[in-house]
Amino acid sequence: MISVEEAQRRVIKGALSKPLTPVIVSLEESLGRVLAEPIVSDLDSPPFDNSSMDGFAVQAKSVAGARPDHPVPLDVVATISAGHPVPDSLTRLDQCYRIMTGAPVPRDVDAVVQVEWTEKDPRHPSRVLIKRPVEPGLNIRRQGADMAKGDTILRSGTRITPAIIGIAATLGRTSLPVYPAPRVAIISTGDEIVEPSEQPGPGQIRNSNAYALYAAVAEAGGQPVLMAHAPDHLQTIVERLDQAAQYELILSSGGVSVGDFDLVKTALDQHGTLDFWRVNVKPGKPIAYGHYRHTPFFGLPGNPVSALITFELFVRPVIRQLQGDSRWRRLMVVLPLMQDFTEVSDRRHYVRCRIEYDGSGKAGIVPSPDQGSAIQTSWLDATALMMVPENTGPLLAGTEVSVMVLRP
Amino acid sequence: MISVEEAQRRVIKGALSKPLTPVIVSLEESLGRVLAEPIVSDLDSPPFDNSSMDGFAVQAKSVAGARPDHPVPLDVVATISAGHPVPDSLTRLDQCYRIMTGAPVPRDVDAVVQVEWTEKDPRHPSRVLIKRPVEPGLNIRRQGADMAKGDTILRSGTRITPAIIGIAATLGRTSLPVYPAPRVAIISTGDEIVEPSEQPGPGQIRNSNAYALYAAVAEAGGQPVLMAHAPDHLQTIVERLDQAAQYELILSSGGVSVGDFDLVKTALDQHGTLDFWRVNVKPGKPIAYGHYRHTPFFGLPGNPVSALITFELFVRPVIRQLQGDSRWRRLMVVLPLMQDFTEVSDRRHYVRCRIEYDGSGKAGIVPSPDQGSAIQTSWLDATALMMVPENTGPLLAGTEVSVMVLRP
Repeated sequence: MISVEEAQRRVIKGALSKPLTPVIVSLEESLGRVLAEPIVSDLDSPPFDNSSMDGFAVQAKSVAGARPDHPVPLDVVATISAGHPVPDSLTRLDQCYRIMTGAPVPRDVDAVVQVEWTEKDPRHPSRVLIKRPVEPGLNIRRQGADMAKGDTILRSGTRITPAIIGIAATLGRTSLPVYPAPRVAIISTGDEIVEPSEQPGPGQIRNSNAYALYAAVAEAGGQPVLMAHAPDHLQTIVERLDQAAQYELILSSGGVSVGDFDLVKTALDQHGTLDFWRVNVKPGKPIAYGHYRHTPFFGLPGNPVSALITFELFVRPVIRQLQGDSRWRRLMVVLPLMQDFTEVSDRRHYVRCRIEYDGSGKAGIVPSPDQGSAIQTSWLDATALMMVPENTGPLLAGTEVSVMVLRP
Repeated sequence: MISVEEAQRRVIKGALSKPLTPVIVSLEESLGRVLAEPIVSDLDSPPFDNSSMDGFAVQAKSVAGARPDHPVPLDVVATISAGHPVPDSLTRLDQCYRIMTGAPVPRDVDAVVQVEWTEKDPRHPSRVLIKRPVEPGLNIRRQGADMAKGDTILRSGTRITPAIIGIAATLGRTSLPVYPAPRVAIISTGDEIVEPSEQPGPGQIRNSNAYALYAAVAEAGGQPVLMAHAPDHLQTIVERLDQAAQYELILSSGGVSVGDFDLVKTALDQHGTLDFWRVNVKPGKPIAYGHYRHTPFFGLPGNPVSALITFELFVRPVIRQLQGDSRWRRLMVVLPLMQDFTEVSDRRHYVRCRIEYDGSGKAGIVPSPDQGSAIQTSWLDATALMMVPENTGPLLAGTEVSVMVLRP
């Protein structure tokens, strides 16, 4: 039985050997995808020295003696607003420009005094009173301070956020080369399964894994493809897998334990290769990984909770890596338990939990009440997974624990 | 100038007064939306007592004396697999059933011995050797232990995750009543702005806010509607706003400062109401909120960084609340600074930062190098915002700081 880390290492290695061909998408469609090429700046940004404030563009030396009770009067010779031609026409030290945020700073001044440090001259409408001295460079954003022409600004492998889209737009991009969403075939198995639209008969339960996994694939950035449900019949399972092998990844749920009816494993034995089928993790020990024909394959447990936790630990990393994103690890933080957690397991335990705040606003961990692997309602308020190492515990309230954040 | 908390209180109050009419969407389309009605269970789940293991279903008392070196032999009278009829036919204490994970547990047994605690009887193919005693109830999942018929399982206002979709499928739902994505009109303003496809002339910059805000609205669960760019011309701005007022929310960027050309504010003064237009926050002090005609309106700063931070603090909460999600607050954690942060501001400062791990795996905070409000590249590796209270600092490495997590 291998560790979670060893299993992750192996599945990521598999994903790295199957890079997807980049595609070009519009800026609007690129959110959440991963850049497939570096992006180089075609200009300086800002493209020119500009004012970060509304105020008055001055020569710093001309207001060196300014004080609130002894302001320096300057003549305003022009107003400079963003997007309009820039004058360059001061002839005397006691002159200045009115300037707006974002407007270019003329060459003959070296600082901007913000409006708040000035006053209108009650006697001269075209004159302003400057009440404080300024350092040269004050309130001026220098050309190229953010991005310089020719620099590589965005690395290949960058996940595209709203801010990254803003940068790409500044750099003149209306489309971006990204890795496509890997198509992920989902096969649920088991004679006991009926569809959600049906009323379960004796011994039957409704199919929840297919729909939960569909959503999990979409949330991870994959393109889910729902296959027809497969009963416990080897030939049907092989047919489904053959059809699924055209996509980038296959997920099945159920049929990978040690039971006599675990035919998915049999199909893999016949037409594929199995890399591992047990991981030292709870819930989810029976998790199979290998290739069906030449397509990477995960056999997830049939229990709905185990299916989603093994998805989180092993499948999501693969879906992210297939998209070119090597930063697939979730945020891990250390927080105190807000109540005792007494369950001890001989496997690494991922405990559904929520992050709560105490009266003083300090965050802590509250595990969901029932951690049974068939208890779907244990997810209801869960936003994180607490990681309890094997043979550890009982953990008392106040113990600091490692937590994997699923939702911020 | 009001506080961040007061501004959030006011904008949320506005959102609460504008509830959207729920719509019905398929299970597959419901991911990330918010439930508009409670969901009641139509059955017990599990619907019947079933086995959580592959093994042998026995009467506990019949194996009370079992030991590894002195196993109890039992005759296997039938095999029970998931989804098939259940026998109920033990006639003697030394009989048992072979049972598969998920299969119904017959009434005449009270425990399941997992395969690992048994051995085949080498002399009798239809006999199994039980090597350990078991408690009644072992490895049996009881009917209704997860969800009981008639119980309200999902509350209205629940954000729909993959696990929630699994629960809904178990409860027989193929579609769900959810709040629709609020339509958010986006108007960029300013004479200095050209489109990304254009080469900026002297004094011009490319439009990045419209595209970054488009993505931010989509990420928050809204439906972005990009309006044509508006130059600094009052009549055009009023036309754009009139058109935008048909949607659920209006965002503009630029034109809300104290400059003479801040015409968005003028348009609001004429045709709407302004609730606030300054918040004690850095970056982003000039952030306007009010109503244009009867539609909620945000005037965001023109600086790209300020626009996205004020979006995060004020607009995202409104978009989430309009979707029925009152749990819009981001996860806040306390982590140590990994380097000094010396900037001190008289406003509440939200500092772009990333969460890093030291050699021992402990998480800490690294602020982006340049926190200027025009420095778009400061977002490149940022996954969180560090919150520095007003007039606080300089903060030395090791200081514990509050951090708002943007991406897990």
